[in-house]
Amino acid sequence: MDQDRWRRLSEWPLLGAALVYLAAYSLQVLLPSDRGLEAVLGVVVWVVWAVFLVDYLANLWLAERRLQWFLRHPFDLLTVALPWLRPLRLLVLLRSAMALAKSRAVNLVGGGTLAIAGSGAALVVYVGALAEYSAEHDAPGASIRSFGDALWWAIETVTTVGYGDYTPVTVGGRIIATGVMITGIALIGAVTASLAAWVAQAAVAQQTAARTPRGTEADLHAEIAELRRRLEAAGRE
Amino acid sequence: MDQDRWRRLSEWPLLGAALVYLAAYSLQVLLPSDRGLEAVLGVVVWVVWAVFLVDYLANLWLAERRLQWFLRHPFDLLTVALPWLRPLRLLVLLRSAMALAKSRAVNLVGGGTLAIAGSGAALVVYVGALAEYSAEHDAPGASIRSFGDALWWAIETVTTVGYGDYTPVTVGGRIIATGVMITGIALIGAVTASLAAWVAQAAVAQQTAARTPRGTEADLHAEIAELRRRLEAAGRE
Amino acid sequence: MDQDRWRRLSEWPLLGAALVYLAAYSLQVLLPSDRGLEAVLGVVVWVVWAVFLVDYLANLWLAERRLQWFLRHPFDLLTVALPWLRPLRLLVLLRSAMALAKSRAVNLVGGGTLAIAGSGAALVVYVGALAEYSAEHDAPGASIRSFGDALWWAIETVTTVGYGDYTPVTVGGRIIATGVMITGIALIGAVTASLAAWVAQAAVAQQTAARTPRGTEADLHAEIAELRRRLEAAGRE
Amino acid sequence: MDQDRWRRLSEWPLLGAALVYLAAYSLQVLLPSDRGLEAVLGVVVWVVWAVFLVDYLANLWLAERRLQWFLRHPFDLLTVALPWLRPLRLLVLLRSAMALAKSRAVNLVGGGTLAIAGSGAALVVYVGALAEYSAEHDAPGASIRSFGDALWWAIETVTTVGYGDYTPVTVGGRIIATGVMITGIALIGAVTASLAAWVAQAAVAQQTAARTPRGTEADLHAEIAELRRRLEAAGRE
Repeated sequence: MDQDRWRRLSEWPLLGAALVYLAAYSLQVLLPSDRGLEAVLGVVVWVVWAVFLVDYLANLWLAERRLQWFLRHPFDLLTVALPWLRPLRLLVLLRSAMALAKSRAVNLVGGGTLAIAGSGAALVVYVGALAEYSAEHDAPGASIRSFGDALWWAIETVTTVGYGDYTPVTVGGRIIATGVMITGIALIGAVTASLAAWVAQAAVAQQTAARTPRGTEADLHAEIAELRRRLEAAGRE
Repeated sequence: MDQDRWRRLSEWPLLGAALVYLAAYSLQVLLPSDRGLEAVLGVVVWVVWAVFLVDYLANLWLAERRLQWFLRHPFDLLTVALPWLRPLRLLVLLRSAMALAKSRAVNLVGGGTLAIAGSGAALVVYVGALAEYSAEHDAPGASIRSFGDALWWAIETVTTVGYGDYTPVTVGGRIIATGVMITGIALIGAVTASLAAWVAQAAVAQQTAARTPRGTEADLHAEIAELRRRLEAAGRE
Repeated sequence: MDQDRWRRLSEWPLLGAALVYLAAYSLQVLLPSDRGLEAVLGVVVWVVWAVFLVDYLANLWLAERRLQWFLRHPFDLLTVALPWLRPLRLLVLLRSAMALAKSRAVNLVGGGTLAIAGSGAALVVYVGALAEYSAEHDAPGASIRSFGDALWWAIETVTTVGYGDYTPVTVGGRIIATGVMITGIALIGAVTASLAAWVAQAAVAQQTAARTPRGTEADLHAEIAELRRRLEAAGRE
Repeated sequence: MDQDRWRRLSEWPLLGAALVYLAAYSLQVLLPSDRGLEAVLGVVVWVVWAVFLVDYLANLWLAERRLQWFLRHPFDLLTVALPWLRPLRLLVLLRSAMALAKSRAVNLVGGGTLAIAGSGAALVVYVGALAEYSAEHDAPGASIRSFGDALWWAIETVTTVGYGDYTPVTVGGRIIATGVMITGIALIGAVTASLAAWVAQAAVAQQTAARTPRGTEADLHAEIAELRRRLEAAGRE
């Protein structure tokens, strides 16, 4: 079995594992006081981590050039090697979505880019709010004290509005915020690029329709074919 | 009668109904204490809702594949099925404007995109300010207490400036704010795309003018026609 | 004399008048207490206004279709008809710069767009700060109390950062702020469009260099010319 | 030796000097109380300045048209002539990175623009935070009092989020902030342009694949060659 085949086989299970992880992480952050639930969620989180680890090792094993693959996928390594970077691990969801979009040949101009950007931004807002709430809600002097506030903070941050009514005060919270802000820049870029491609397509269609009065290369082919027929006729005489 | 014909016929009446609704909604929000007026406006709102409902049912009835149309137009369903989502219903105005622009073949490069983006942003700012004022002005701890403040808040939000001198504090107000922020991202995207298309057109024109020293396909056609004449002359000798 | 000739003749005098006006307006706002200076500046402002009025009337008189020109230039009318909209009148500077750039065929891709956007933004920041300072510095509850603060406020507004340490509180000040914000959106758009055009040109150049293995239409022309020579040679035998 | 050769030879030493300067400047700002270190750093800073001065004079000496080079490189002059504009001098790093990227023909579409924009923004954030901390931390009424705060301030400023929890209050700090904001606008522009180029390439590839049913100029060449062979055959008969 080669790496491509493994990727195709593992695509859906990985996405499922990431979704399970998202649910478990959400419950861990939002219901931290429930003892029984926490034990169950702990098991779930370890199982998902094992799934990611198996995928990482399988990819490393099946790669044609192992050292190269190892060096080019530091993010995958971080995802499995640092169990305490929990929010980061959820970015696997984004990676899965990207891979699915690519393998399904989503139309990047006609709305595909917009859909990916929108879904990605929504995921980052939700996960960012979860992580920010987890990092900030019991810090001294914090303003983000409920998950609702954290969601609102994430929305005004990802759109780069930034009222400043809620701001992170811990180092961890500010690192998460930086990730949300960079997502915001990428969101603006993706929305703009998608609209620009759409306007450009419309413009090219208009120009093309207006510019070619007599036709194009197809006519040249026809004329040359006509020339050849005449030559042949002349040769036969 | 098929669906296309219904759409063409209903285009202007729907736009009119949406404008009436905008006026009625504005008066409802800004003059809430006037009893007699409120009764009249209530009737107007119900009549407009009936117009939208008739349009929705007619579209559903005339659609070639009813189930498909039903599934692909969830926004239209929300507009007529949830009478308490009043601000959302005003987005019909935006949809009408878009449809009109499309059917009138507005030039998307030479200012058309800018005009649509500007009008849409102005509409969202006005409707967003109305809805925000309605949601916030009597909430405890609110900072948006007058319609003027709400307008100013909507302008600084749609441009993603976000001073933070006025911020929503209710869940409803924050949902409306999220809509205004997303409009802002789309506005930046549309302005940029429009300018990019304009610059790109200018660049293409410059390149084209600079690159073709001897002419283009038109010359090729002429040369081949000349060849053909010589061949014919040679054949006649 | 036709309108085009008038435009070419009036280009530089109008720019000069606008610059004089900028200086006079700056002094009026920043040194309002000096009686003698104020009298001089008042005269200067009226002279510049007379220059603008003469230009407007000349354009109207020389236009081929006067009604059409009148309807299509409402901004020019506002500039001369409303003497109390002083800051607006300074936008003539922007218009002059645009016209000059166009008539001098500034390269829009290779930095021209960036230069126009940067100069325009700098002008709007300076004029916006002047107008904002004039509107706000003695309003009750205002935070913008010095010209330095107004400049800083204009810079953080035009870049859509919007800290909120200084915010306008008067209606006039907020209308000016809206103009600065819209300039900010346009600035982002122009910078992005300029960079996008530059990247696109580089990409097209790369693609073109990679794609044409044997040459282009020039080769076709050469081959057809060669064919013609052979035909002629064949005809002579 | 001509200027091009000098540039190629001085490329890496200049980058090294700028990196040494970055380290020395960082230590000067962050550990200002250490007397012995400060003396060493002072010497390092003067040596780096001497390196820059030698490069400037060599460029001026080797330039074909000295006056033209002098007038077109005011930034280089500022870098060496104003020893107290220390942060500005660090922009040499950015210039070196740009020159390296150009001379190594980095692929500007496939991630190169993104990488340059990201590295440049990271450098500006770090240097901006250093300079801002240096300018603000002991000013009366300042909110930016630690280097951590300055870093957080620079990140929220370069992404144009601008919460307003930390804002500069000194003139020097605001000038530095303006630089960081302009970098932010350029960052948004570069990210968007890079994404737009990527989407546009995908769109062109899709269109090209869909549009050419029979082939292109290559076929025309083949057909004309075929014509020529037939003519020659006809001539030989």
